[in-house]
Amino acid sequence: MQIVITGGGGFLASMLVRRLLDCGVAGKPVTRIITIDLVPCPVIDPRIESIVADIGERETLVRAISPDTGAIVHLAAVVSGQAEADFDLGMRVNIDATRQLLEHARGLGTRPRFVFTSSVAAFGGNLPERVQDDTRTLPQSSYGVQKVIGELLVGDYTRKGYIDGITLRVPTISVRPGAPNKAASSFASGIIREPLAGMEAICPVSTQMRMWLQSPDRAIDNLAHALALDGALLGNDRTVNLPGLSVAVGEMIDALRIAAGEAVTRLIRFAPDPAVERIVASWPNDFDAVRARALGFVADEDYVSVVRAHMASTGSASPAGQNPPA
Amino acid sequence: MQIVITGGGGFLASMLVRRLLDCGVAGKPVTRIITIDLVPCPVIDPRIESIVADIGERETLVRAISPDTGAIVHLAAVVSGQAEADFDLGMRVNIDATRQLLEHARGLGTRPRFVFTSSVAAFGGNLPERVQDDTRTLPQSSYGVQKVIGELLVGDYTRKGYIDGITLRVPTISVRPGAPNKAASSFASGIIREPLAGMEAICPVSTQMRMWLQSPDRAIDNLAHALALDGALLGNDRTVNLPGLSVAVGEMIDALRIAAGEAVTRLIRFAPDPAVERIVASWPNDFDAVRARALGFVADEDYVSVVRAHMASTGSASPAGQNPPA
Repeated sequence: MQIVITGGGGFLASMLVRRLLDCGVAGKPVTRIITIDLVPCPVIDPRIESIVADIGERETLVRAISPDTGAIVHLAAVVSGQAEADFDLGMRVNIDATRQLLEHARGLGTRPRFVFTSSVAAFGGNLPERVQDDTRTLPQSSYGVQKVIGELLVGDYTRKGYIDGITLRVPTISVRPGAPNKAASSFASGIIREPLAGMEAICPVSTQMRMWLQSPDRAIDNLAHALALDGALLGNDRTVNLPGLSVAVGEMIDALRIAAGEAVTRLIRFAPDPAVERIVASWPNDFDAVRARALGFVADEDYVSVVRAHMASTGSASPAGQNPPA
Repeated sequence: MQIVITGGGGFLASMLVRRLLDCGVAGKPVTRIITIDLVPCPVIDPRIESIVADIGERETLVRAISPDTGAIVHLAAVVSGQAEADFDLGMRVNIDATRQLLEHARGLGTRPRFVFTSSVAAFGGNLPERVQDDTRTLPQSSYGVQKVIGELLVGDYTRKGYIDGITLRVPTISVRPGAPNKAASSFASGIIREPLAGMEAICPVSTQMRMWLQSPDRAIDNLAHALALDGALLGNDRTVNLPGLSVAVGEMIDALRIAAGEAVTRLIRFAPDPAVERIVASWPNDFDAVRARALGFVADEDYVSVVRAHMASTGSASPAGQNPPA
């Protein structure tokens, strides 16, 4: 099986690439992965072809997508903060490039599996305490609007028989490894990751701000599951609200304290940023996700485990007195 | 005040043009109306400039939209049946041309009022018996998907301060004068209009099929109201489900019988068309529309009045024995 992954240079894509090469899809080995991104795929494996290019360029897609393409995972996006700051860039990448990709998938004539990632930013306005599977989308950011437009297109291309599409509304990923990015939610990883690395972290929102979170490991479980899932189970609604954890920023810091000790948490400095507050506060922070669970999608058990898994994967120090002997 | 109307050659636009020239907008006279359509605006008035061109062409919009443009009414669309039959045409007109128009409105820098018309086709899937104001959109046709994408763009361009937008989800218009069109709902006018003109009408759905209807007169009331309404009253949701009448096809025929006599109804021939049945059955047929009523939008009193108003406007014969003396 041959898979194309956009945004293939990112950390989530790298993890997905490793998972797919190791485990295949639904028992079938993955023989080739073609990544498209502005940076190369950091995973080194002879089965990987890493195309360093703009997904908005037609030639890139012509080169990447061939009759052998069995599935496409579309992760590339201009993230929330950036799409708000640069409206035209967000429209070009999040809408136009998504459409081009869908057109190329349609052109194959083979109805390939197409996995698209949307976001909690699809929701906004007067939200119920917990978002239900039939809660309407009312995005209050350009990123959210662009993601919902992608969901609609994936749904219609599927209904028309051009692709076999699934959109996952992915919770905010925490703890995301690597450097901060331009997502308004970047701090939701930074306030754990930076202190564990001995660095100061800026928290632009209050401890009361509640978020809907998922660890990178569970996100990969869910992306891999979406590649293997029988599309017919989704009926006439190809968009799935993933399960996750509803965690307040204060609870995230408590979990960091439990996993890594009090001293580490003192590296978090609060510096309110009204622009970030406004965007993040417009997102829902709790979901029912009954349908996703029934379809086999998964969530983390609790946020302390999420912090511990991040520490294990990065080799972060355990709190004093709990260090294993060197 | 200067107003640009796309789809300006259509019957709804012609009625709107007359209304605006006669009544102005919120007490201000309309000094100039520029229509854009593939056919000329049939209304003759020195205040009308009728541009016969494709709204997808950049030069057309450059010519039509100027710093004097106070409002834009975007009625032009590839209708439901046609957008389903020709996917690419629907995408080009219903999405790309809408975006171009929004970009030109944004380019003015004056935040013009932008009235967009969406449809009951925005909804689909498992619907409640009556669509509520917060019922989610789950369109099951390409037309519906394209309209919801337009709604999202109008909302975001408004939120960003580029336009002052309002989208009306207009019920199926009945009785639409003129010739049948390629809308799946075309019969909802045809089964009244054609028999009243002494012609046979084909009804492609069963008498049980229920629809959400609005007369042309009420649609014009609502479009004119949308031009005058204070946008701030709409808050963070710029899309309004218009009020209407929930009428089964059998009840429409009963109303025709009451208004015009039994003989006329015998001109309706039933010839089920599964493609039309499928599209129309996917649309909701009853709405709560509480918000729209609170905002001052209106519905017809009953369907018999709608038929009578159509007869009055076209000079159709009353039933035998009820004719006024010649």
